[in-house]
Amino acid sequence: MSNAPFHTLVEFKAVLKAQPQANCDALKAAQDRNGQLTKPPGALGRLEDVAIWYAGWRGQAAPVIKSPQAVVFAGNHGVAAQGVSAFPPEVTAQMVLNFQHGGAAINQMCKTFGANLTVRGLDLDTPTDDFTKGPAMSEAGVIAALQTGWNAVDKGTDLLVAGEMGIGNTTSAAAIACALFGGNAEEWVGRGTGVTDDGLALKARVVSEGLAANPSAAGNGLEALRCLGGRELAAMAGAIASARAKSIPVILDGFICSAAAACLENTQKGALDHTVAGHLSAEGAHAKVLKNIGKDPLLSLGLRLGEGSGAALAIGILQGAVACHSGMATFAEAGVTDV
Amino acid sequence: MSNAPFHTLVEFKAVLKAQPQANCDALKAAQDRNGQLTKPPGALGRLEDVAIWYAGWRGQAAPVIKSPQAVVFAGNHGVAAQGVSAFPPEVTAQMVLNFQHGGAAINQMCKTFGANLTVRGLDLDTPTDDFTKGPAMSEAGVIAALQTGWNAVDKGTDLLVAGEMGIGNTTSAAAIACALFGGNAEEWVGRGTGVTDDGLALKARVVSEGLAANPSAAGNGLEALRCLGGRELAAMAGAIASARAKSIPVILDGFICSAAAACLENTQKGALDHTVAGHLSAEGAHAKVLKNIGKDPLLSLGLRLGEGSGAALAIGILQGAVACHSGMATFAEAGVTDV
Repeated sequence: MSNAPFHTLVEFKAVLKAQPQANCDALKAAQDRNGQLTKPPGALGRLEDVAIWYAGWRGQAAPVIKSPQAVVFAGNHGVAAQGVSAFPPEVTAQMVLNFQHGGAAINQMCKTFGANLTVRGLDLDTPTDDFTKGPAMSEAGVIAALQTGWNAVDKGTDLLVAGEMGIGNTTSAAAIACALFGGNAEEWVGRGTGVTDDGLALKARVVSEGLAANPSAAGNGLEALRCLGGRELAAMAGAIASARAKSIPVILDGFICSAAAACLENTQKGALDHTVAGHLSAEGAHAKVLKNIGKDPLLSLGLRLGEGSGAALAIGILQGAVACHSGMATFAEAGVTDV
Repeated sequence: MSNAPFHTLVEFKAVLKAQPQANCDALKAAQDRNGQLTKPPGALGRLEDVAIWYAGWRGQAAPVIKSPQAVVFAGNHGVAAQGVSAFPPEVTAQMVLNFQHGGAAINQMCKTFGANLTVRGLDLDTPTDDFTKGPAMSEAGVIAALQTGWNAVDKGTDLLVAGEMGIGNTTSAAAIACALFGGNAEEWVGRGTGVTDDGLALKARVVSEGLAANPSAAGNGLEALRCLGGRELAAMAGAIASARAKSIPVILDGFICSAAAACLENTQKGALDHTVAGHLSAEGAHAKVLKNIGKDPLLSLGLRLGEGSGAALAIGILQGAVACHSGMATFAEAGVTDV
């Protein structure tokens, strides 16, 4: 049983359309507060913008980050059988066990920044269909994954990171980006976990075939998600939308998370207004996806791991930004001469 | 009484020359460990380099960051009387009180990342001499400040941030950079806490006058620090050197901290090998100082506040990097298929 308020893609679209906006009063109050803090105007740079943005979405002039949550979804891809990854498909389930046992990068990031980690493997024994032959998922399939994502977000969460694991999923993300933003398949494929030059050419061919086999995906976010995505991508999209409904700001992770997010933005302009890009992935086409969804990444440290690891690293940036905003003294409180 | 092992600049120079190097065995063991962790090779990007670097300086294959420390030094500058800052000199002492009462940005950063904060105001009632008229400090004066910095670093610290507060000190840092790296004064001065176009021209003139009045500073790190620096810059240099002696890696802060650090590197090549640049300041010439000392900043978020705030924000990056390095399972431990 799902608590998600949608059971069809038409209903999901309606949910996206009716989502709440940032709280204007809180935004204004946060801007005022920022101008009174004991620092030269603008001296905290982007941290000021991020703190005010966060305040607006939380509806509080001086918010506190107490309960960050990372949700990591795992899925297997029919298209992996085409040999698009350097790693075999069984690694997806093995890594889910690693997440559950605390041994992966995302576990250490969550510990470091005090975030709860929620891991959901989605039907790992049954890969989605190979999208070079037709849609990866049926409507019921993509809805189930969206619902899993929606339900994974805890009500008490005050900052969400959405991440993924899925052998073959950079190919899926490249296909979505190509379907939504156009251009050649070659522009959107990258080395993922480490494919060779031949592997890269194969990925481009597979993406081209996927687009040809799924004409409904072109320029259509939810169709791209269903036909070219995977369950973990749909679950991330569901979680991002769920966070909006609960007034929880979201940090987007790398290429795959951003491609999933782009399906929402394509469906409903502004659907990602409550999100910030956590980092710029070393996966080549990520920068172009971010540009297309209008996001400027907080970090650029060459990560290309997925699992939500880059976004989780950016939790620290948001914690620092919000702590300064809400904890600093004003000029008046501190008796410091303003100019 | 100081525990610092130097009482003259000649002795300080000898200390810099005899400093310990990174532990090669720990470096090698950390590199080996990194190659076995459950992630594609290189997938954590720069975090891998930073974790291995940290391991080498700590002398441990799998280190843990438990006790970060931020040291913030404050000083007043004779040159401030020339009107080079948008804020009046009394703000230095007011901000020291703000640090002590927990109201500044650095306090919130330290709380966020679990760092201890040590604040030292250095003879705030007696500004250094105006460097346009001659040396800012005598040898005894700069040694006392270096010793204050040296003694401020706790033995149990495992990661150090050095920061500063001092009305007028971007002018001092610009003068040091110009003395060490050449070029025109105009290339090194910036808007600091927010000076006008006229203020910028004034700063350039003051820097030029400072260099003319202190010919011994040209190309000489310790003379530049003494003649053009301030007590808080010398204290940061002392703290950075002290950390090296205690095998504590250091995160450099912005323009002023980097200029102070450059005095060490100029004096002894490799003196900053145990340091990483925490962030790129919005103060224009910082990028050029970092290039000259061979450092690539971890963050670039438009901060220009000082106080060690940007470096403290980067504590989270190091914590994440080291936590992944030391906490992740290996492929063998996790039963994940390697390729």
